[in-house]
Amino acid sequence: MELEFIRWLEKRLPHSTASPPGIGDDAALFALEAGHQGVVTVDIITDGVDFELAEVPPRRIGRKALAVNLSDMAAMAARPLAAVVGLALPRAGALELAKELYEGLIPLAKQYGVVIAGGDTNTWDGRLVISVTVIGQMPVGRALTRASARPGDSILVTGQLGGSILGHHLDFEPRIKEALWLAERGKVNAGMDISDGLSLDLWRMSQASGLGAELIASKIPIAAAAAELARADGRPALEHALSDGEDFELLLAAESGVATELEATQPLKCGLTVIGRFVAEPGLWLVDDDGKRTPIEPRGFQH
Amino acid sequence: MELEFIRWLEKRLPHSTASPPGIGDDAALFALEAGHQGVVTVDIITDGVDFELAEVPPRRIGRKALAVNLSDMAAMAARPLAAVVGLALPRAGALELAKELYEGLIPLAKQYGVVIAGGDTNTWDGRLVISVTVIGQMPVGRALTRASARPGDSILVTGQLGGSILGHHLDFEPRIKEALWLAERGKVNAGMDISDGLSLDLWRMSQASGLGAELIASKIPIAAAAAELARADGRPALEHALSDGEDFELLLAAESGVATELEATQPLKCGLTVIGRFVAEPGLWLVDDDGKRTPIEPRGFQH
Repeated sequence: MELEFIRWLEKRLPHSTASPPGIGDDAALFALEAGHQGVVTVDIITDGVDFELAEVPPRRIGRKALAVNLSDMAAMAARPLAAVVGLALPRAGALELAKELYEGLIPLAKQYGVVIAGGDTNTWDGRLVISVTVIGQMPVGRALTRASARPGDSILVTGQLGGSILGHHLDFEPRIKEALWLAERGKVNAGMDISDGLSLDLWRMSQASGLGAELIASKIPIAAAAAELARADGRPALEHALSDGEDFELLLAAESGVATELEATQPLKCGLTVIGRFVAEPGLWLVDDDGKRTPIEPRGFQH
Repeated sequence: MELEFIRWLEKRLPHSTASPPGIGDDAALFALEAGHQGVVTVDIITDGVDFELAEVPPRRIGRKALAVNLSDMAAMAARPLAAVVGLALPRAGALELAKELYEGLIPLAKQYGVVIAGGDTNTWDGRLVISVTVIGQMPVGRALTRASARPGDSILVTGQLGGSILGHHLDFEPRIKEALWLAERGKVNAGMDISDGLSLDLWRMSQASGLGAELIASKIPIAAAAAELARADGRPALEHALSDGEDFELLLAAESGVATELEATQPLKCGLTVIGRFVAEPGLWLVDDDGKRTPIEPRGFQH
């Protein structure tokens, strides 16, 4: 654990340094509020798979390394508290690279009240690898899981889907505030984040809940980037929205009356759309404007 | 976070699966006992720097990836609770490699009551990178820090030092039990683990405590491996004990009467030796049998 470098950087960045209660400035101590349980998640991202260091400014890469973990926190409706950062840096220009990665990572951490509690910074002969672990908390018993959707529940998504590779996968906003707002009001039965593609992640949620799911084709919010990709590669934009990875939007289950009200009142700035419903019969279907149901394969990014 | 693979592996390993209280089987929830604070540490180890995948069985590498973090927990006298594991695996033979890494990691986790709470398993075109984050706890206010040694305190070490590269750096036992035993009895004023070499880490502890330190040359416990290395490279065994990295022993400060009693009664199986004392004057010295004091440079592994 080496904090000196991170603290040195933090002092040089134009952001306030407010720490959430219970997190000390000491090496790597943290506290959970009474009545809360801890939540932990890790993501390891690598040059050539999750980003191209030769093509993308390190600040955006550093931001992404933390953001994917914050999206995991949002997926469980947990409040993030602290992060630890492991870096394997190519030897040439290692210090400058580390500095720029943190210059992307630290502002996002501050935005969500996350303290960088420690790290491990190494150089090696390989390409850049970033491992971020985030610790969060939630009231005991209030974890948002993917296993508790009910038959008849509406399926909701935040934001728009598809075409993430054009830039969204680096610059997306983790849906922390949205997840906390929904969970605190008891509005949703189940949730997860869409990291590997709508159809694959919806299939996982259905399986975990012992259900099937119907998607209404015309209701799926297609990102402008998905349409742009479609023009370039000739595949339908809908297919991009169904199977492109790294949307990092929330996929939610809510009782249909609640879902209709949420969609009508639009309490979230990023948008919230009812895109189908969970059914008792296992499977995954796309429903067209005439109500015709076609089975679809879960497709997306497999690790 | 992908737990299925880890759970699948755990079921196939010949070890009990007792979980400490408060850790659920669910994705990545954990709990801290009342009156306790959380502690978190991360270490990222890479092929070619921390191990040679071509030369070492993956089980020993997986074990090391967790053990270095457990040593960090011991350094703070924290009780480890849970670990999350990030892997960047070379594509060829990735599944078998992951399996063997976990076959080394999981038994060590079980030995110390650590639950593997989650992970992120990826393949890429690069060499193996393993990032392990460990979460632990300690009673509020009882962190063992490196900053609280006092002038006149004796310097103690567990075990023997030097020559780690010959095998100890893979197979060492993290000094969790020893650190907890000492901390629970209030026997020590300050502590850290020796990861980068005795002289360098002692220098860090002295600096953090605003002190200097004198080492008694004849008292430093020299590992058999340090003597073996000395025969091979002609450098004195004592120099290996002073500057080789990855001993992963505890470096401790205790009031001299306490230290003398600890050394005489030897309550720890791994051994405990008084090797010098902290002094008010900043600096680092080696003292020979005639009491002659020679300044030494802090030497060891710099990240």
